[in-house]
Amino acid sequence: MPEPAEVTTVACVGAGVIGGGWAAHFLARGYHVRAWDPAPGAGDRLRRLVDAAWPALTELGLAEGASPDNLTVLPALADAVADAGFVQESAPENLAVKRALLADIDAVAPPGVVVASSTSGFPMSDMQVDAARPGRLVVGHPFNPPYLIPLVEVVGGDKTEQWAVDWASTFYRHVGKSVITMDRELPGFIANRLQEALWREALHMVAAGEATVEQIDTAITEGPGLRWPVHGPCLTFHLAGGEGGMAHMLDHFGPSLKAPWTRLDAPELTRELRDGMVSGCESEADGRSIAELVAERDRAIIAVQRAVHASRGGQR
Amino acid sequence: MPEPAEVTTVACVGAGVIGGGWAAHFLARGYHVRAWDPAPGAGDRLRRLVDAAWPALTELGLAEGASPDNLTVLPALADAVADAGFVQESAPENLAVKRALLADIDAVAPPGVVVASSTSGFPMSDMQVDAARPGRLVVGHPFNPPYLIPLVEVVGGDKTEQWAVDWASTFYRHVGKSVITMDRELPGFIANRLQEALWREALHMVAAGEATVEQIDTAITEGPGLRWPVHGPCLTFHLAGGEGGMAHMLDHFGPSLKAPWTRLDAPELTRELRDGMVSGCESEADGRSIAELVAERDRAIIAVQRAVHASRGGQR
Repeated sequence: MPEPAEVTTVACVGAGVIGGGWAAHFLARGYHVRAWDPAPGAGDRLRRLVDAAWPALTELGLAEGASPDNLTVLPALADAVADAGFVQESAPENLAVKRALLADIDAVAPPGVVVASSTSGFPMSDMQVDAARPGRLVVGHPFNPPYLIPLVEVVGGDKTEQWAVDWASTFYRHVGKSVITMDRELPGFIANRLQEALWREALHMVAAGEATVEQIDTAITEGPGLRWPVHGPCLTFHLAGGEGGMAHMLDHFGPSLKAPWTRLDAPELTRELRDGMVSGCESEADGRSIAELVAERDRAIIAVQRAVHASRGGQR
Repeated sequence: MPEPAEVTTVACVGAGVIGGGWAAHFLARGYHVRAWDPAPGAGDRLRRLVDAAWPALTELGLAEGASPDNLTVLPALADAVADAGFVQESAPENLAVKRALLADIDAVAPPGVVVASSTSGFPMSDMQVDAARPGRLVVGHPFNPPYLIPLVEVVGGDKTEQWAVDWASTFYRHVGKSVITMDRELPGFIANRLQEALWREALHMVAAGEATVEQIDTAITEGPGLRWPVHGPCLTFHLAGGEGGMAHMLDHFGPSLKAPWTRLDAPELTRELRDGMVSGCESEADGRSIAELVAERDRAIIAVQRAVHASRGGQR
């Protein structure tokens, strides 16, 4: 297998919003990208997507030699993956399609090359069943747009070999991503489980006539959404507890977990869970006091609001 | 009752993290703030909180005459509310406490003055039962820190009169808040239902050993959390559908709503719900094409990442 740092060519199989976003990311990082997508007009859509992303990527800073001209759209899957040092699969979210396609990719990709799937939530164990060499198949789940959002969740299936998980994690970090390497399969992984809980509650509220689409979006963009690029949900509530931190927050708001604030029942707030949340926040704070975290948050929220405001050309 | 624009003095009853944050906000907007909190040491903690917030508020720009010196901490509730043109109650989240306190405030606040509760989720109908003049009692639910996060959710209870809901909405807008005025009571209102669904799923994941506190926070700050100050969850997924928008997204990912991506079951994706989500997004996009929204999002995400990065003094 190639060393992660020595890869020069990446194959993007499936070139919709996610596959095209991956292509834009790899191109901006200086890779040659070979793309394949059987859908009619996919090549043209892919080039439009890369062109649309390029100003943002240029603004962020391109790697040496990076160019949209390093994109080649191939008419045959085998040609797209033949010279690749890494394959990113981003086909439609359909288990039968993913199974067949991963087996096809595996049959033609060079030996030892890792193949990652962008699936939003299928466990790799369910997708790798038809592949001859399933040991090199991993999930590499990005967020839209993959050329800007750093997070990639990496996890293998029952038949995935550990070296492939490690290789993919190293490679993604090498190309500038923030990687969460999971030690177990979980439908929806981590970020989509969190995001999807919020999304499902939103759909329930619209279905029940309890809130409009616009109220839901405003509730997030003008509310908790302003905190989440700064501190995740746990550290955010660590600060909601004032000088007492997460411990005070859970002791004070613990009873609210019994309230019907969502359709999702909360877990029992056992002593073990409480203590785990508290020690997790302390570990994450890494010595920063509540006062320091508050100052960090305040600076960041102001900067985020100004950034969003300016990016809209001064409009709210 | 006073005109919303003519209020010069606000009473903050309860001066913990939320009540203190409200005090800081009103002080920065040039109001005289009269605070009352029966907890030992509450006055000192309140002054520390205002002092900690003041650099951020100064950076944002203070109203004429704004000063922390306009804060007066009173030993008696009646003295705190006697001269107030508006009362913000931010007591601990305990229904019996809120009921008794709102009745006490109502008994001593000047006639016609609106009294708003910062409750995180209690319906006003449950809180106003002991008050002699419940018509002026409303929920005005802020987000921490109230001096930076714009959102306030305003809703009345069974006995609240419509003028009070309208007055509070106008007043909050006058002091620079983004207001969602709800037309019905809903435990947890809108933003907390969304945020709390995510939080409950996070607690389940920690309790089950599926993710650590740090993985959960990273999953949000490096992932979907970077999008949410820019576009709420609905517009975000409008863009996940590519050129087909929300309609394509729901038609493609609709089946995923059956997948166990969270502990929260999704609603049935009826034709009516699908069409409602699509038309809601089109209304919110207000003529902006998907390409324009993508460009806006990309500019904003880059700016947000830079802002967060800079606010941490260049550390990631």
